[in-house]
Amino acid sequence: MQAGKPILYSYFRSSCSWRVRIALALKGIDYETVPINLIKDGGQQLAIIEYLEETRPTPRLLPQDPKKRASVRMISDLIAGGIQPLQNLSVLKQVGEEFQLTWAQNAIISGFNALEQILQSTAGTYCVGDEVTMADLCLVPQVANAERFKVDCTPYPTISSINKRLLVLEAFQVTHPCRQPDTPTELRA
Amino acid sequence: MQAGKPILYSYFRSSCSWRVRIALALKGIDYETVPINLIKDGGQQLAIIEYLEETRPTPRLLPQDPKKRASVRMISDLIAGGIQPLQNLSVLKQVGEEFQLTWAQNAIISGFNALEQILQSTAGTYCVGDEVTMADLCLVPQVANAERFKVDCTPYPTISSINKRLLVLEAFQVTHPCRQPDTPTELRA
Repeated sequence: MQAGKPILYSYFRSSCSWRVRIALALKGIDYETVPINLIKDGGQQLAIIEYLEETRPTPRLLPQDPKKRASVRMISDLIAGGIQPLQNLSVLKQVGEEFQLTWAQNAIISGFNALEQILQSTAGTYCVGDEVTMADLCLVPQVANAERFKVDCTPYPTISSINKRLLVLEAFQVTHPCRQPDTPTELRA
Repeated sequence: MQAGKPILYSYFRSSCSWRVRIALALKGIDYETVPINLIKDGGQQLAIIEYLEETRPTPRLLPQDPKKRASVRMISDLIAGGIQPLQNLSVLKQVGEEFQLTWAQNAIISGFNALEQILQSTAGTYCVGDEVTMADLCLVPQVANAERFKVDCTPYPTISSINKRLLVLEAFQVTHPCRQPDTPTELRA
């Protein structure tokens, strides 16, 4: 392992890990992946992204304008603090097997209802304006979770079209859960 | 209402509102409170605090050093994204009345176990070093929630002693849920 190369403790399926992988890819930071089989994850990885933004500011993942920055953080927090924590593995385990799917769907639907409305006033090509921001790093993994939990996304045209435009970008493709060192063979693409 | 005076849509008991009230008090920003009876709240109010920090940088709620800033955000996200969303009203309603207390206690205990360990390496007088930071704005309302849910805090001496030192500060006292415009009479102090 190269001296000074950062290590990312990552779980292929974790949306929190994926957010950070996208940030590292966008900023062109080379890193070692150390896979860990996460049972529990939280929203904490936004602290890593804010740290990367402060120490490696190019390309920026937060707009220059304070109000737009607040929009980016509001969207990021809505996803990473308002949706994802309610549908992660450790919580679903406590919910009990027969209620897990409905529980996760409810969390995502209630969050997406709010998110769709917010995006209608903030979005350009991406979540906030026409540049990729931290909000987009949160959006794509969350839409992937929605699909895993079979949430019907047709009521969310803004979310869906932004997600589609992001998924063709290289940083989102190379970091995809289906292409990680710890991705099981049957889930690889 | 004075022109240009910011409005805080606040619920006396919401830990998210309380965090923002503390930030406003510390920064000496005068505001109008518009009480709303929150059924659902999330971690989104951290976006407000980051916005305040960027537009009203004095006194600072994030340290200057990027690594310390990351510690502050990690602690804030652990509380606002890892604990609070699991024990807020809307989630507890879904859990069902007979499981609510255990559910909330489990969320808090599991979060506090991690938090106590982190604080042992970051804390000075307060959560990160000797200045009040965003992490402290998250800590105090969460400890108040722990007390409401009857969590035994003796296994968390670092959390408890920081909380005690913060609660004597004016910004934490004037913003306390027992002293808000919408606090019911029986909960006033």
